[in-house]
Amino acid sequence: MQVSCRQEQDKNMLELMTRLYPICRSITGEGVRQTLRILQEQIPLEIHEVSTGTQVFDWTVPKEWNIKDAWIKNSAGERLVDFRNLNLHVVNYSAPVQERMKLAELKEHLHTLPKYPDWVPYRTSYYKETWGFCLSENQLAQFNPSDDYNVCIDSSLTNGSLTYGEYFIKGKQEEEVLVHCHVCHPSLANDNLSGIAVAVKLAQFLVASPRRYSYRFLFLPGTIGAITWLSRNQQIVPKIRHGVVLTCVGDPGNITYKRSRRGNAEIDRAFIQILKQSGQPHRIIDFSPYGYDERQYCSPGFNLPVGVMMRSRHGEFPEYHTSADNLDFVRPEALDDSFSKLRDVIEVLEGNRNYVNLQPKGEPQLGRRGLYGMVGGENKKDWEMAILWVLNLSDGSSSLLDIAERSDLPFSLIHSAADALAQVELLQEV
Amino acid sequence: MQVSCRQEQDKNMLELMTRLYPICRSITGEGVRQTLRILQEQIPLEIHEVSTGTQVFDWTVPKEWNIKDAWIKNSAGERLVDFRNLNLHVVNYSAPVQERMKLAELKEHLHTLPKYPDWVPYRTSYYKETWGFCLSENQLAQFNPSDDYNVCIDSSLTNGSLTYGEYFIKGKQEEEVLVHCHVCHPSLANDNLSGIAVAVKLAQFLVASPRRYSYRFLFLPGTIGAITWLSRNQQIVPKIRHGVVLTCVGDPGNITYKRSRRGNAEIDRAFIQILKQSGQPHRIIDFSPYGYDERQYCSPGFNLPVGVMMRSRHGEFPEYHTSADNLDFVRPEALDDSFSKLRDVIEVLEGNRNYVNLQPKGEPQLGRRGLYGMVGGENKKDWEMAILWVLNLSDGSSSLLDIAERSDLPFSLIHSAADALAQVELLQEV
Amino acid sequence: MQVSCRQEQDKNMLELMTRLYPICRSITGEGVRQTLRILQEQIPLEIHEVSTGTQVFDWTVPKEWNIKDAWIKNSAGERLVDFRNLNLHVVNYSAPVQERMKLAELKEHLHTLPKYPDWVPYRTSYYKETWGFCLSENQLAQFNPSDDYNVCIDSSLTNGSLTYGEYFIKGKQEEEVLVHCHVCHPSLANDNLSGIAVAVKLAQFLVASPRRYSYRFLFLPGTIGAITWLSRNQQIVPKIRHGVVLTCVGDPGNITYKRSRRGNAEIDRAFIQILKQSGQPHRIIDFSPYGYDERQYCSPGFNLPVGVMMRSRHGEFPEYHTSADNLDFVRPEALDDSFSKLRDVIEVLEGNRNYVNLQPKGEPQLGRRGLYGMVGGENKKDWEMAILWVLNLSDGSSSLLDIAERSDLPFSLIHSAADALAQVELLQEV
Repeated sequence: MQVSCRQEQDKNMLELMTRLYPICRSITGEGVRQTLRILQEQIPLEIHEVSTGTQVFDWTVPKEWNIKDAWIKNSAGERLVDFRNLNLHVVNYSAPVQERMKLAELKEHLHTLPKYPDWVPYRTSYYKETWGFCLSENQLAQFNPSDDYNVCIDSSLTNGSLTYGEYFIKGKQEEEVLVHCHVCHPSLANDNLSGIAVAVKLAQFLVASPRRYSYRFLFLPGTIGAITWLSRNQQIVPKIRHGVVLTCVGDPGNITYKRSRRGNAEIDRAFIQILKQSGQPHRIIDFSPYGYDERQYCSPGFNLPVGVMMRSRHGEFPEYHTSADNLDFVRPEALDDSFSKLRDVIEVLEGNRNYVNLQPKGEPQLGRRGLYGMVGGENKKDWEMAILWVLNLSDGSSSLLDIAERSDLPFSLIHSAADALAQVELLQEV
Repeated sequence: MQVSCRQEQDKNMLELMTRLYPICRSITGEGVRQTLRILQEQIPLEIHEVSTGTQVFDWTVPKEWNIKDAWIKNSAGERLVDFRNLNLHVVNYSAPVQERMKLAELKEHLHTLPKYPDWVPYRTSYYKETWGFCLSENQLAQFNPSDDYNVCIDSSLTNGSLTYGEYFIKGKQEEEVLVHCHVCHPSLANDNLSGIAVAVKLAQFLVASPRRYSYRFLFLPGTIGAITWLSRNQQIVPKIRHGVVLTCVGDPGNITYKRSRRGNAEIDRAFIQILKQSGQPHRIIDFSPYGYDERQYCSPGFNLPVGVMMRSRHGEFPEYHTSADNLDFVRPEALDDSFSKLRDVIEVLEGNRNYVNLQPKGEPQLGRRGLYGMVGGENKKDWEMAILWVLNLSDGSSSLLDIAERSDLPFSLIHSAADALAQVELLQEV
Repeated sequence: MQVSCRQEQDKNMLELMTRLYPICRSITGEGVRQTLRILQEQIPLEIHEVSTGTQVFDWTVPKEWNIKDAWIKNSAGERLVDFRNLNLHVVNYSAPVQERMKLAELKEHLHTLPKYPDWVPYRTSYYKETWGFCLSENQLAQFNPSDDYNVCIDSSLTNGSLTYGEYFIKGKQEEEVLVHCHVCHPSLANDNLSGIAVAVKLAQFLVASPRRYSYRFLFLPGTIGAITWLSRNQQIVPKIRHGVVLTCVGDPGNITYKRSRRGNAEIDRAFIQILKQSGQPHRIIDFSPYGYDERQYCSPGFNLPVGVMMRSRHGEFPEYHTSADNLDFVRPEALDDSFSKLRDVIEVLEGNRNYVNLQPKGEPQLGRRGLYGMVGGENKKDWEMAILWVLNLSDGSSSLLDIAERSDLPFSLIHSAADALAQVELLQEV
């Protein structure tokens, strides 16, 4: 029953990605709007519009980009490169163009991947006005140097707005957990439809029952989106207690967690706890100021405890930022594993508290309270050790996560032991 | 002369163990009393009695258990299991019983060790009233399923008292070193007659000359004994500067030291110093809230700097808690080594002080003070380095143990260098 | 042009050493004076004289030692050992002697190196009045046991003074960098004419342009010289912000850096940074109170951040303190490498500052400031990472050296990035 339900959910993640995949997103424009509207079918997202020209810290909200069609035709009028087949064919945010030119001249606007002759690269040019096409080496081989080519990009760069989505789930406390994903990439599946799908599933999971923390899900265009949001929500920043950027969470690689700038924030320790206790191969990497929007959250003026959850890391898998990052590259079991690890991390954050042992002098007599008999079998020893560790370290200064780390026992077991001890009044939350 | 004296002492440790071995000890009762009276022949121990029913923190002092005889007879009246042969045959603290039953019924009360068919296990049931017998697999094989068996445990559980021994050696300071061993195990040699024997020898060694610290030796039943003592002596607790639990110190394994809960207390560092400098294989393990009575001293309400000295660790040698932990399992040279390491650790604690260099600006001229000529031969270089290290680090903030650790020289050498420097007035105790 | 200029400098280092090599230096006397006067041709050194008998902390300035000649003649009047050939032949600071004696008696005053039969050892006896000769095993083999020998040391020990040189280069700040080398060794090249030559070259390099720090170069006899200087200049001590002892910097071994007593002072970190980023094999060793005059600067009454730069370490190369430590043992390229690493370390100290990012909220828009286009080619990525790291960590609490360490990028790159960012007003010094 539970399994079939979970399988349905997985199907939902991939189904959502399949619907979103064909849309031509960019940092502004209809692509993002259309994407957020589809997400609204799953979660009650608020859609925000910020006008072109708005000053956001050191930046200015750029023009809105929209595109209808684009092609390169040979003199016979055949479309050799066709935006309708794949939106990656146009350099994202390209200025409009309609020209006839020789291949030599055209080539300055063409991008290929010599190492992967079947694949089309993904290129952008947000802050320098230009235009270009991306195509495979194989496509390029069919061009005739002596032929004339008609190129057309039917795009527009106009005053409009930057669009982003935000979904806030109120918890018992004002303190928030931030979940961020970028929504500016066109037909790329792992980067970052996978992050969007996992975020949506997490939001659906969390809304079902009230939580200690409030949760804020942000669906933003990269860089300018995070900067815009931060600029407009500075009063919220102090409430952000933990945060995570989700990207590339659908590929078959092992999970990679990138620490926050703080290096040992609770979110960092929660991820390390879950990944280590999983017994599965994984990678913990240090913060560096290059990557995704952790760069903005971890800038020195904010220094928020925001890490990054990935599977394969951007730039380290060949499919990254190419047409090969398509729906086939993403695995349902990887999405499921990413979701389930993230949920476990959330449970650590939710459950992490400091307690005091109410019988701190010597050990309390556990036998007569029935705490030793609660669990049988192979886990009996771990359970009893968890009980002893929680009692021993609960002097108010150690959190349950501290105790899990020092005892090398899973957080979930330490948490259960604390609950059981609180129930028999041996433990009290600080 | 010194050697023969030492050999005699060793003989004393083993002789003491040999006298104590046959006694049927438990957490209360005549066995403990008889044991402590024998110890009184060696050291002027005070014997304390605490009445059944006394509240001690979260616990209550249990009934006094005594036993005269116990057996399982077959229908022919033969004693197949006989307490008179080995007191481990009775589950320690068993309620009295006298019944006739079939083997099937009896088996629920029988405990064997299938992996070691010759050995008899040691079992207890202190806090759940029941009865049982322990026997070897080979003995059990002689039982006839169709026969009837008479079982008798001629024990009593009555109001009485819990008994423990305490020996206090007053030193120059009020601050104390606690030496703890448990005295509740029946015929088991390594666990813990070895600890008792080493503690007695240490007490005899220390009483000979006045020390800086006061020393308190406790001979207590496990768990309830430590809790009882702590409950009745809370005013002493703040004076305990260092402490060690002695157990399983007579087997041929390497020394294992378990750190206190604090992890890096002076007692921990003193043990590590002595074990490391010995060049002998050894093991330093982290604190965990499972083991012996360090659990009580290191509970969060006390958090005393109390570690555990062992050779093989409880649960990690097959003889543990079986009839094979007998006098043959214990080696005189292991007892001697345990004693001598413990004595060296005490010398570190006794000698560890902070000094200030009275000529702190530049090096003092050592040549004219004859400090360089004091030692010749191979150790000359180490001696000179010890002199230089003590002078260099004696700014008041470093103890001699700090200096030994940083210089990687033996504490005893650092200590001698400090003495020599103090004698020529280059050093003064802080 | 730059290359030829550098080659000339190298020649200068070796030329200076060649001029200084034959002089018979000791802790006092004409040898040191003559040496310092030669240095005055290169840098405007002040020469200080401190009278015999002056009390300097725990020491007294010793008599002045001078020597004209010394020999051992056989009965045929042949000089078997001749000071005029090699000043190492006389135990340095030997009292005068003129005697005739048998080999047996003479042998108590002879020192050889059995392991290296061609080499003459270097021996001293500063603080115990005696005399002696050093010779090779091969020379000793030519002595005839039955012959009579005339020995003569035409030396004098008289009231006079201890001589040292000091060169102060005033910088923008009063805080100083101390560069120390000892000048008391006779004909030994690596120990320490190499240190003197590198120090002189560094002084010439630094005087050319005003620096942030002031620089103080000390040319002192070992131990007593440093103690004398410290005793007479206590008011300067608090201004010493960094310091380094230079010795054995001309041999072909890898660079060894010995940390200051503080262990992680800025000078220690600057050396580690430069040596690590060089990619060349090197060694970082911990402080110990044995070695050169770091012993005095790092005594507990001063605890100055003074490390030691060496190539092969004293006592660890066979030529150490023998006639084989001659001009052939020293390599121009090693001298050059020592100088260039030391200069790089100085540049770290000079350039190390704390900055604040003036656009700390989110990343500033670098594209429009042209900071990304500044560097091309292979180093482009490192340059961009340096820009991002400096922006990210410049919250006022991190120095550029902190940033270089955390980013694992060369200090020079981090420094350039900070300069570029300051120029576009994204960064301000704290």
